[in-house]
Amino acid sequence: MQQTRIVIENVSPQIDCGSYFIKRIVGQSITVTADVFSDGHDIIECCVKFKHESDKKWQEVRMVPKQNDQWSADFKVEQQGNYTYFVEGWVDYALNWQHGTERKIQDNQYVKSELLEGAEYVNAVLKLATASEKVYLKKVAAYFITESDYDVAIKEAMSSELHQIFKKYPIRLLENKSSELKAYVDRKKALFSTWYEFFPRSASEEEGKHGTFKDCEKLLPRVANMGFDTLYFPPIHPIGEVNRKGKNNATNAQVGDVGSPWGIGSQYGGHKSTHPELGTIDDFKSLVKKAKELGIEVAMDYALQAAPDHPYVKEFPQWFKWRPDGTVQYAENPPKKYQDIQPIYFESGDWKNLWKELLDVALFWIEECDVKIYRVDNPHTKPFFFWGWLISEIKKKHLDVLFLAEAFARPKIMNELAKQGFTQSYTYFTWRNSKSELIEYVEELTQSEQKEFYRPNFWPNTPDINPLALHHGNESIHLQKYFLAATLSSSVGIYGPVFEYQASTPIAPGKEEYMDSEKYEFVKWDWKKENKITKLITKINSIRKEQDSLQQTNNVVFCETSNDQILAYYKFDDEKQNETLMVASLDAHNTAQSMVKLPNELLGKLPLEIIDLITGYIYVWDKEWNFVELSPEMPFHLFKIQS
Amino acid sequence: MQQTRIVIENVSPQIDCGSYFIKRIVGQSITVTADVFSDGHDIIECCVKFKHESDKKWQEVRMVPKQNDQWSADFKVEQQGNYTYFVEGWVDYALNWQHGTERKIQDNQYVKSELLEGAEYVNAVLKLATASEKVYLKKVAAYFITESDYDVAIKEAMSSELHQIFKKYPIRLLENKSSELKAYVDRKKALFSTWYEFFPRSASEEEGKHGTFKDCEKLLPRVANMGFDTLYFPPIHPIGEVNRKGKNNATNAQVGDVGSPWGIGSQYGGHKSTHPELGTIDDFKSLVKKAKELGIEVAMDYALQAAPDHPYVKEFPQWFKWRPDGTVQYAENPPKKYQDIQPIYFESGDWKNLWKELLDVALFWIEECDVKIYRVDNPHTKPFFFWGWLISEIKKKHLDVLFLAEAFARPKIMNELAKQGFTQSYTYFTWRNSKSELIEYVEELTQSEQKEFYRPNFWPNTPDINPLALHHGNESIHLQKYFLAATLSSSVGIYGPVFEYQASTPIAPGKEEYMDSEKYEFVKWDWKKENKITKLITKINSIRKEQDSLQQTNNVVFCETSNDQILAYYKFDDEKQNETLMVASLDAHNTAQSMVKLPNELLGKLPLEIIDLITGYIYVWDKEWNFVELSPEMPFHLFKIQS
Repeated sequence: MQQTRIVIENVSPQIDCGSYFIKRIVGQSITVTADVFSDGHDIIECCVKFKHESDKKWQEVRMVPKQNDQWSADFKVEQQGNYTYFVEGWVDYALNWQHGTERKIQDNQYVKSELLEGAEYVNAVLKLATASEKVYLKKVAAYFITESDYDVAIKEAMSSELHQIFKKYPIRLLENKSSELKAYVDRKKALFSTWYEFFPRSASEEEGKHGTFKDCEKLLPRVANMGFDTLYFPPIHPIGEVNRKGKNNATNAQVGDVGSPWGIGSQYGGHKSTHPELGTIDDFKSLVKKAKELGIEVAMDYALQAAPDHPYVKEFPQWFKWRPDGTVQYAENPPKKYQDIQPIYFESGDWKNLWKELLDVALFWIEECDVKIYRVDNPHTKPFFFWGWLISEIKKKHLDVLFLAEAFARPKIMNELAKQGFTQSYTYFTWRNSKSELIEYVEELTQSEQKEFYRPNFWPNTPDINPLALHHGNESIHLQKYFLAATLSSSVGIYGPVFEYQASTPIAPGKEEYMDSEKYEFVKWDWKKENKITKLITKINSIRKEQDSLQQTNNVVFCETSNDQILAYYKFDDEKQNETLMVASLDAHNTAQSMVKLPNELLGKLPLEIIDLITGYIYVWDKEWNFVELSPEMPFHLFKIQS
Repeated sequence: MQQTRIVIENVSPQIDCGSYFIKRIVGQSITVTADVFSDGHDIIECCVKFKHESDKKWQEVRMVPKQNDQWSADFKVEQQGNYTYFVEGWVDYALNWQHGTERKIQDNQYVKSELLEGAEYVNAVLKLATASEKVYLKKVAAYFITESDYDVAIKEAMSSELHQIFKKYPIRLLENKSSELKAYVDRKKALFSTWYEFFPRSASEEEGKHGTFKDCEKLLPRVANMGFDTLYFPPIHPIGEVNRKGKNNATNAQVGDVGSPWGIGSQYGGHKSTHPELGTIDDFKSLVKKAKELGIEVAMDYALQAAPDHPYVKEFPQWFKWRPDGTVQYAENPPKKYQDIQPIYFESGDWKNLWKELLDVALFWIEECDVKIYRVDNPHTKPFFFWGWLISEIKKKHLDVLFLAEAFARPKIMNELAKQGFTQSYTYFTWRNSKSELIEYVEELTQSEQKEFYRPNFWPNTPDINPLALHHGNESIHLQKYFLAATLSSSVGIYGPVFEYQASTPIAPGKEEYMDSEKYEFVKWDWKKENKITKLITKINSIRKEQDSLQQTNNVVFCETSNDQILAYYKFDDEKQNETLMVASLDAHNTAQSMVKLPNELLGKLPLEIIDLITGYIYVWDKEWNFVELSPEMPFHLFKIQS
């Protein structure tokens, strides 16, 4: 039995009945909508109450009615960490009284009895009112209860001043509340980040020499100058020596083969150690520090698996699965075998200690070396609830730490990792090539429920994925892919030298593995080389830093174009102060022409002065449909709307 | 920290995160779908567990995978009352072992170690297996652990017999469960009912004489012969004498005016009494009994309001709102006043006693007079949670009792009443006239989430609504409206004599109130009169009883037609054993011709022999598109698909 007359339903945003939090960055808004209604015809009011985990008191913002019994309000989140919000609604008897009395007065009814009721409502808000409001209210109450001032009284009864006071101090009787929902607020980098990946062992400028952290330091200015703010390294831990993989994923390594960095652990240590050939923990610490000075954060790989000679295997045998024949279970996806890797046995009876140790590993690099970003390797092969726990435990102490989920799995798997708390996620962008594929995918990310919890990071390539579209790819397709990634998504990353230098020979035709993959050997790159791809990436990255509209992903509107090889989209910042319009050709071989239809958002501003931020050319577009021509040499426009 | 690796999300059907129950009738199925998945590549299994409130044990049905990590299963509900269901999922290690081992064997790997593992799985299911399965399993385990029978062992490892046993007896470790969801199962009448409404005081065959329950008894055969199974009466309680309304809603009644039956309560009693002019409670009891013998249930009106002279007002003044001037609050919707009615004050401090008394009223007629159906008057002006409580309290003792919500309010209000437990609901059908309006509305009812909890009852008219379309309406529009109501919806009702005799003069042009409304006076009907409308209603009702496909509402598929004045739709029963195809003209004045496209469901059966159950004519339709012509004289076909 509950006496409240208010129903609150369909509160949004809400992920899986409130099981998961939505995500925002500092300074963003949350627009809460809900169906709120009561029986009968009474006037109701409702508000959103919200607070940061550090707040003692709830803040409140009044909702306004939209159509069909839906109400809406928004509030800004100003601090990192957990927020809670819910909707509260009540029948507003005072406003209801005023509304009804006004109707009766307009109908020339005698409302003396209503005025006496009104006096009761006035007296009820008296104790909440300010001094000057009190003076006014006392006067009004006096009019209401005396016979003599009827004309003044009915004027006051209908006054907007009284209305404002009633609105300001609602008497909430029999109110109802929705259940509490959660939002997690990150620092800005969670949403806006520009990643560069290379293998530190390929950092040496000397042919045939294993790179070191010191060599990496020398490359930092190059990465910074190109406009990257996040430098991600594959695992830097000791590489297993037992069952080590050879070049091109050969089962048996030859002498001198360096193995896969993901085969973690050897006599030199495990997840809390560095690979001796790269340098010491102090070297790494120095690298992180120098990077920071240049505006770069070093992102570490968090890869939960062990080489057969990882110290854990002897120290904590209960964290691995042992077979009836006494051997340990190596990784497999039958009939494939991965003998250089032993999966962690999350079904272990000792799972709580296991989880604690894995948390400890993550905390070690955060606390010891000031690492603030983890790219998590294959999170979809470890229990989802483990990630929910791990990430929230780390966030309790270190609000700044961000997690990128490296999962290229089925849609619901990828979503679940994001729901469990991963800050950013890899995406299917890598395989979306046609105009319709790109539009469909970006609209799914930005218009479905995913927009609330899934922050995409668009990677045209990774060490694991040499996408068909880039095989033996020409310069134009590389320019196009980076442009699309960096302007469609506010987080973008490349597996750097391979992308810049178009080193994308597949191991076999049609295969997405690289020939002579850096996963199994180090490579000598000509780090001094600059080409058109390098320069345009630098240019695009610099534009991203200046244009707020490119610093979020959900704010995209696709434009109609007359040519299926031409993709156009409009982006805007929260205040619509900064607006950009991107036009990209998907044809890497021919010049493409198209008419582009301006989005409705811009039609009211015709004629439009737009500047291509890449070339500096200024255009005036004065019609709804406008002509563009793009060549493979410069397959995109990045227009800023000037006026 | 939870160790389970299974995620279960998006369980459907589920109303507002499980806050409300879905609805079914005995014998229907519930198809449960859910997203169920795990990390990694392991084989998972899941099931729906369900039980009736009287069951001690959960029943279980295994789910089957659909696409994109969604699973599905259905189960039948065989008993009235509350059911609970949830989804359970687990990693199936034994099936996973078999799957992996099979792949390795096919890859010619030596799997002795796998066979040893297999023996452990076999031993684990031993204790659950039947005697004969035990014999088999022991044999298999023996093969698995000995060196000598490798060839036999690997054959057994891959056998479907072993697979079936593993599937049958899953070892559920670290399983996960969804939250529990609820369904309420009613008797069939909740879904399939045919209502006739008249005012008992108009039942007399003598001019100028107030009808009685005895007079009503005489009309029962007529109602039964027309094929109605539910006879609904406006309130039968004593009508207030203070501020009684006169004819045509006049504020002051004249001597002899009988007042509105909804102005309940006088010196003769309140909600537990009968109006003296209608007869005694015993007379009413006799009427209900006689009706039952003819297959008719009498539906009472449950109208929670009081005339000023209702005994409650003196006895329980705390259940009404008193104004500062000492008067009681009458009903109003400013500036309108309803001085003959005092609303119940649900904000009363004594609300718990109030609720109990109102429950007691409902129970009185159920237990005293065998009433099983309530048509609830204006439920949307009383608190929603009151209804949820009241209905569930009654259902605890009386599973058969059904409630029809008489609310013509905003969509979310109407939905909420259905969610709170009303068995059936009035609808907007009354105002849906064009083909597109009808299709859109019926698809909303039958394809949106509403289909799970909102059981529509289509009324072409009521004493409160004289819809514009019927004003001075001709015969054809009445035939059309009843046909649509009775074949689109499995529950249908008419405000009888007014509809049959087209007595739909409005009080003023464009107003939906009747002139000389029976709400304020009694009327002498010529109950013996039969006309074409009477006869066709009788025919349609008789067809509804024979054709299962017309006994539910959600099973409708609209067909394309070439004429906007022709509406066509196909219905089918659960087993697709009974199929009907309705074609109706919406043009009440002209003959209409159209091509009708058969639905996909029927295309495989061409040529189709169909019989018009109204006329008995047989047609053969051998093409996807077929010609129809309908005249205002007979504006519909009701085809049964014969073969």
